Amino acid sequence: MIIEVIGRRLRLGIVGGGPGSVIGDVHRAGARLDGYYEIVAAALSSDPERSRRTGRAIGVSDERAYPSWRELVESEAKRKDRIDVIAVMTPNDSNYDICCAALDAGFHIICDKPLTTDLASAISLAKKVKSSGLEFCLTHSYTAYPMVRQARAMILNGAIGPIRQLHLQYVQGYLASEDIPPGWRLDPARVGGSMILIDIGTHAHHLGAYVTGLDLESLCADVGHVVPGRKVDDYVSMLLRYSNGARGSMWVTNAASGAEDRMAIRLRRTNIGYSL
Amino acid sequence: MIIEVIGRRLRLGIVGGGPGSVIGDVHRAGARLDGYYEIVAAALSSDPERSRRTGRAIGVSDERAYPSWRELVESEAKRKDRIDVIAVMTPNDSNYDICCAALDAGFHIICDKPLTTDLASAISLAKKVKSSGLEFCLTHSYTAYPMVRQARAMILNGAIGPIRQLHLQYVQGYLASEDIPPGWRLDPARVGGSMILIDIGTHAHHLGAYVTGLDLESLCADVGHVVPGRKVDDYVSMLLRYSNGARGSMWVTNAASGAEDRMAIRLRRTNIGYSL
Amino acid sequence: MIIEVIGRRLRLGIVGGGPGSVIGDVHRAGARLDGYYEIVAAALSSDPERSRRTGRAIGVSDERAYPSWRELVESEAKRKDRIDVIAVMTPNDSNYDICCAALDAGFHIICDKPLTTDLASAISLAKKVKSSGLEFCLTHSYTAYPMVRQARAMILNGAIGPIRQLHLQYVQGYLASEDIPPGWRLDPARVGGSMILIDIGTHAHHLGAYVTGLDLESLCADVGHVVPGRKVDDYVSMLLRYSNGARGSMWVTNAASGAEDRMAIRLRRTNIGYSL
Amino acid sequence: MIIEVIGRRLRLGIVGGGPGSVIGDVHRAGARLDGYYEIVAAALSSDPERSRRTGRAIGVSDERAYPSWRELVESEAKRKDRIDVIAVMTPNDSNYDICCAALDAGFHIICDKPLTTDLASAISLAKKVKSSGLEFCLTHSYTAYPMVRQARAMILNGAIGPIRQLHLQYVQGYLASEDIPPGWRLDPARVGGSMILIDIGTHAHHLGAYVTGLDLESLCADVGHVVPGRKVDDYVSMLLRYSNGARGSMWVTNAASGAEDRMAIRLRRTNIGYSL
Repeated sequence: MIIEVIGRRLRLGIVGGGPGSVIGDVHRAGARLDGYYEIVAAALSSDPERSRRTGRAIGVSDERAYPSWRELVESEAKRKDRIDVIAVMTPNDSNYDICCAALDAGFHIICDKPLTTDLASAISLAKKVKSSGLEFCLTHSYTAYPMVRQARAMILNGAIGPIRQLHLQYVQGYLASEDIPPGWRLDPARVGGSMILIDIGTHAHHLGAYVTGLDLESLCADVGHVVPGRKVDDYVSMLLRYSNGARGSMWVTNAASGAEDRMAIRLRRTNIGYSL
Repeated sequence: MIIEVIGRRLRLGIVGGGPGSVIGDVHRAGARLDGYYEIVAAALSSDPERSRRTGRAIGVSDERAYPSWRELVESEAKRKDRIDVIAVMTPNDSNYDICCAALDAGFHIICDKPLTTDLASAISLAKKVKSSGLEFCLTHSYTAYPMVRQARAMILNGAIGPIRQLHLQYVQGYLASEDIPPGWRLDPARVGGSMILIDIGTHAHHLGAYVTGLDLESLCADVGHVVPGRKVDDYVSMLLRYSNGARGSMWVTNAASGAEDRMAIRLRRTNIGYSL
Repeated sequence: MIIEVIGRRLRLGIVGGGPGSVIGDVHRAGARLDGYYEIVAAALSSDPERSRRTGRAIGVSDERAYPSWRELVESEAKRKDRIDVIAVMTPNDSNYDICCAALDAGFHIICDKPLTTDLASAISLAKKVKSSGLEFCLTHSYTAYPMVRQARAMILNGAIGPIRQLHLQYVQGYLASEDIPPGWRLDPARVGGSMILIDIGTHAHHLGAYVTGLDLESLCADVGHVVPGRKVDDYVSMLLRYSNGARGSMWVTNAASGAEDRMAIRLRRTNIGYSL
Repeated sequence: MIIEVIGRRLRLGIVGGGPGSVIGDVHRAGARLDGYYEIVAAALSSDPERSRRTGRAIGVSDERAYPSWRELVESEAKRKDRIDVIAVMTPNDSNYDICCAALDAGFHIICDKPLTTDLASAISLAKKVKSSGLEFCLTHSYTAYPMVRQARAMILNGAIGPIRQLHLQYVQGYLASEDIPPGWRLDPARVGGSMILIDIGTHAHHLGAYVTGLDLESLCADVGHVVPGRKVDDYVSMLLRYSNGARGSMWVTNAASGAEDRMAIRLRRTNIGYSL
């Protein structure tokens, strides 16, 4: 479709997510799946040689395999065949600077959540996006599934009736052990205000708001860590109140041993005899 | 087994739960299943004729089909072939009086939850039971299932490791509609302090405490009704803290349309690579 | 219900299935569940002392705890408070003689499948039942479940449309090992023509015929044993043709390691857009 | 990986499967997913204008969007930047000719099953492939899933013990209606010897043989159509015997209303206490 409109694939530049990283492979497979993107530039390592080598492995020419996101943004901005879109998949605390520079260079952005690591910078970035006129996609990827779209459509067109209860869960287990090697995600200085809330709580909240069209009005939360000695939050349970009076709950953790990657939304309306 | 010990089945008297009522049929099937009980007396209706007729339908002689629980207790207390056990399955606000009278008459008791409708009377009844030396069974029936017993055994013998999270749910839908006919369960004066908490919240709490052996230390609750205009609570969501430091949640409602009778317990320990 | 009609419970005599046997406990629980039967006589052991002791454990008086089915039939036939019904749960090769004697004595019969161990005796027994005017229940118990009844009703009233395919499975694993201790079920002389077919194949066939109302017209079968050295059939797979032209299959085995007790029926009609 | 070895992506030419066709989109997504292929040539329509237009939609230049597979093979064979691999996704009866021509031109082949529509041509093509020294991939795609690979590995290394039973199912419903529009798949002249066997029966057979490493030695089959008036087979049920003495069954149909795309393999070994 995009090819039919502009006569070629979109040119994508990638920052972070080298070959072998979970999120990098997922991003690239997603970009390729429909054939709408061509990955032509990348900043995968600060070591120039490693940057070129990993770039080659994903089909990026040496010339456009940059040793830093700054060089990628600056150099691409000057090219005639410059990238259309930049995909940012770096640790949370770098999103703000990269996105600001990319917007200044006129690139559309696909950015991994969380947007930034504090509210002030998030608002600042949102304003900058708005005034730029560029597209900015935050990867709340769960809301792209057809059944989620169908659920939203059924609720918005009234097929379900008023929502009275909304219960959200996102339960992972990959941080359940006490022996997780250190990394930016377990470092309070880099991960942002609350690891669990901005890492996956954001997905649960977005899913609930997107599917129901309701605004979250107030909440009461138990946020903390369940793994002894941990310095970041790995658990949250919340009581929720929504704009239409609906009540609900949210349970989000990545320290639930045995859980893979379970996301659930349960909606309850009270007027008729069946339910979602 | 009981037959081998005392040479006959236990003689059971039933208060409430006439033929056709959900809980009455369940109680009687449970009493018969293993062949340890014989139902010989009943108080099923205040209308003497109806009491005899429904008594006959469950095999009770006219003579022992009483028009009130008082008459049942008094008359049975005088018989040589008196009942051994009384089963109480009447509305919440009658449990206290019936149980006290039955204890005074020297009958063992099987009583439906909730014990009573307020804390003071519950404590008073508990003391009376203790001093009587009689058996008193409160029907927290879910903890009788083999898999629940197995879960408890595995946790208590350390097979699971320390529990870090405990999430409880009891979700029914039979009161989801706004058009439920009135009855004692929707009457604040008869149902007790909180319909949802004493009706089924008690099951969820008991299950969690029984399976883990943990005491609930503190909680933060959102209790209320989700069906507009209802005068009793039909919804509760809680944040929980247990005696060993574990965190958890409880979601209990009988106003979740589409739900049948779903009870769940999810335990999470954090040290090893699999989970319950 | 039965109590309301005849003013008392039905009196049941039990042959075989002593305390501790799987099928005996199931039969007795089934008889007690609704309160329609009273177990008053039993032949549980040829050792008179053991017969009395096990009889007592299930509430049968010493006087009516017989050391053989013959004595049970003869003695009960003479009593004023004689049994109404006899339940036969002995090895396959004894069904014929017991049932014939019970019919002669005028008792209604609940008999475990298979009816007998060969076709000629089965036909002979069927004729005898018909001319006796007595009730004869063969325990094809799976067809008593509400969902099976519902399925049959939907098919017979045309809600499903014509059945084009019918696939039946009954898969157990309790005879999967090569080290099963000997017993009548593994003895070709006692178990009848084909262990697997008359033991559980009969259930699968009955379920298919009952639910659909179709007659099986022809079949092609692979019958044999999959456990090396076994002397009875433990496996059958069949190609089926039904009276309305429907095709189907049947897979029945009790030598599928890991299987508990899985019974399935899959119906396919071809005209409309959903399916059972 | 491939990029690291030969310094570029593999060049792929596609025959059949225009935009919008189920299998074409699946092939292209599969080719793109890992980034190992670049789709550079296509024969998507015999109408030259349509061929170019649909080619453009998938990123193929007008020059290499051919109006026939013959022109694709001939023209590509002469180019310096010729395709490495050709993917054939045309109706069954065209596979043989296209594959022979592609082999003559020296192209590796990815060909949709069935190989051809009769045994003689299949053997002839197999010989030609062998003598060519080129790679030939038949799309038995189900055996590429990690869990299937894991099952095979566990069986071949003896973790499961000897296989005694093997039951295969592939059940679809997209041809269950009597009102399917005509097409090559329902045309006996084009689809080959048996539509159901070569369309999806081939998948079930391949899965069983691949996972167990066993050869199918003999079979007894009920092949036919269950949808009235159909001219091709849409149903097969089989009794199977494998090289190690194992027995089994196969049920394959695409006329089972309500079924989506269900493939199953059940293995049973008889020596130990658990099972696949």
